[in-house]
Amino acid sequence: MHGGNIYDNRIRLDFSVSINPLGIPEEVERALSASLCHADCYPDPENRALRDALAERFHLTPGKILVGNGASELIPAIVRAVQPKSALLVSPSFSGYERALAAAGITPCLFPLKEEQGFVPGEDFLVALEREKPGIVFLANPANPSGALTKRRFLLAAADLLAAWDGVLVCDECFLALSGRKEESVLAKPEEFLKRANLVMLNAFTKTFAIPGIRIGFAAFSSEELAEKTALQLPEWNLSVPAEEAGLACLSVPDSYLKDSVTLIRRERAALAKALTDLGASAYPSEGNFLLFRWNRDQDLYQILLDQGILIRDCRDYRGLSKGYYRIAVRRKEENAELIRCLAGIAGKGIPGA
Amino acid sequence: MHGGNIYDNRIRLDFSVSINPLGIPEEVERALSASLCHADCYPDPENRALRDALAERFHLTPGKILVGNGASELIPAIVRAVQPKSALLVSPSFSGYERALAAAGITPCLFPLKEEQGFVPGEDFLVALEREKPGIVFLANPANPSGALTKRRFLLAAADLLAAWDGVLVCDECFLALSGRKEESVLAKPEEFLKRANLVMLNAFTKTFAIPGIRIGFAAFSSEELAEKTALQLPEWNLSVPAEEAGLACLSVPDSYLKDSVTLIRRERAALAKALTDLGASAYPSEGNFLLFRWNRDQDLYQILLDQGILIRDCRDYRGLSKGYYRIAVRRKEENAELIRCLAGIAGKGIPGA
Repeated sequence: MHGGNIYDNRIRLDFSVSINPLGIPEEVERALSASLCHADCYPDPENRALRDALAERFHLTPGKILVGNGASELIPAIVRAVQPKSALLVSPSFSGYERALAAAGITPCLFPLKEEQGFVPGEDFLVALEREKPGIVFLANPANPSGALTKRRFLLAAADLLAAWDGVLVCDECFLALSGRKEESVLAKPEEFLKRANLVMLNAFTKTFAIPGIRIGFAAFSSEELAEKTALQLPEWNLSVPAEEAGLACLSVPDSYLKDSVTLIRRERAALAKALTDLGASAYPSEGNFLLFRWNRDQDLYQILLDQGILIRDCRDYRGLSKGYYRIAVRRKEENAELIRCLAGIAGKGIPGA
Repeated sequence: MHGGNIYDNRIRLDFSVSINPLGIPEEVERALSASLCHADCYPDPENRALRDALAERFHLTPGKILVGNGASELIPAIVRAVQPKSALLVSPSFSGYERALAAAGITPCLFPLKEEQGFVPGEDFLVALEREKPGIVFLANPANPSGALTKRRFLLAAADLLAAWDGVLVCDECFLALSGRKEESVLAKPEEFLKRANLVMLNAFTKTFAIPGIRIGFAAFSSEELAEKTALQLPEWNLSVPAEEAGLACLSVPDSYLKDSVTLIRRERAALAKALTDLGASAYPSEGNFLLFRWNRDQDLYQILLDQGILIRDCRDYRGLSKGYYRIAVRRKEENAELIRCLAGIAGKGIPGA
């Protein structure tokens, strides 16, 4: 189960996928249209233009950068390249990590995040690392579905522990740009990233630039050797021509787009959290462009909203969560207001703040 | 090495990739443009619309159909799903099969096709199958780079042999539609396809509809179990929104487009073969939209043509071939005539037929 399944349902508002509420930047739309003139050409098998541009952006050499048909392609490719004997995942977390491990025949060890700690891994996670000595660890920052932010210092400490047994840490930063907290990226200081033996930063243009239909992920590796091994696990011509050209356009979008996105998301996230709390729900602290909450009423909120044409993410299938937990995207003001109106109706309450 | 690397070179004519010389059908161009309106939506993770349409076209159930980000994504996914202990490839053949096997740690056994038999596998190939008992076999029909056609009866016989030890036969029919010989598809009679235990038909819209930049492959499985296992080896959302919508449009292109394509290709292929022979080269019989030939002069034809802005496929890196073998696409009349003019100049001869 994932968000975004608009294909099974008649939906007027999709709160189940968490993409930039400002929508696709016009530079990217233009690049997509223009790219169709090259639909009759094979993509560059080495994706040099995009890898070079990403390398420049992140102050790395292009040999440490890979691009993929979405981050969802890079996750299993990294697993196959690492060939870990074991893995550690926090729960709840994105199901794609477990799916990729299962495809390689690996059942991960699970570390349950604590609700009362805001779903942030703490010192006990580092203890678990030392005990389990996993070959690979995936950590999303901010976390999905909670939106909790993990500090860069903590991630580097985890990477240092893993280095002792050649373990690999993959930090999934797909939601980090929209959190406005890029100082917590493992790549915030490239020289510190490069000092780590096996650290991978996973990312995508999907959420940041609202283009999930195009499929453009990328990864930065502290180890060029691991990047090369991972490249062998990717299909040839894995990035379509529109994806490569859109990716290049994403890198040229003015800073103001992201700045405006973050401002909007922070304001709207706070408004949504307050309204949810006013309605008696428990909203968890999030630095993402989405909110996890527990609906403290015995109602099937997912189905009730679906009947009203609104899709949210029912989180009962996340390991470590259960019935009553939901995730919603932070969308534009009027869309969020409409969701709140519907929620108030379902709760049998007046509209909070009205 | 592959054809189509226009990114390293300044090219005015690309004969190294073999796509439909008629170019993208206008229905497909329109669908691609229209699809960009949905770039902000996740693709359907099950790709139901396209799989249903393909299932209808091939008279199979959708559970036996998978779609991929190009056939190049499906090849390694099938290998990982089968987990073969051994593999048999003919040589020369497309390097992608060996690359996919290598990524799974498998070194294939090679069966050298004989130049004097027109690079068509014969009875001795079936003997080799029985001797080697490979877990998986890839056969392209028509073959790449020779363009030689293999009969459906022969392929079914090979599949029957493989069934004895649960081996899988993958028939790569990416070039079959443009050969106009679809009666030799393993799917020509679906009931005979379905009787085979582990037969896979691999295909793509890339060559047939001239859209290599978009990436849309598909595969039909006689075994739904193998289709399901392969699906687990594919990333989620592997088909972009433009790819899915273009694929649907490809299935609605009028028959006249393919008929005209095949007529053009047959006429131009014959003209190219005759001209090559007149210039002293050895052209091999091809039913594909490309021609393999040996340039019987001690000249680096690849580089000489490249200096004139023409890219052809140097086949010296194909196993079983060597220096002096080249593959050219069959293009439009005036483009082929320009190539012949250049070749005549290189050979120091008059233009054949002029």
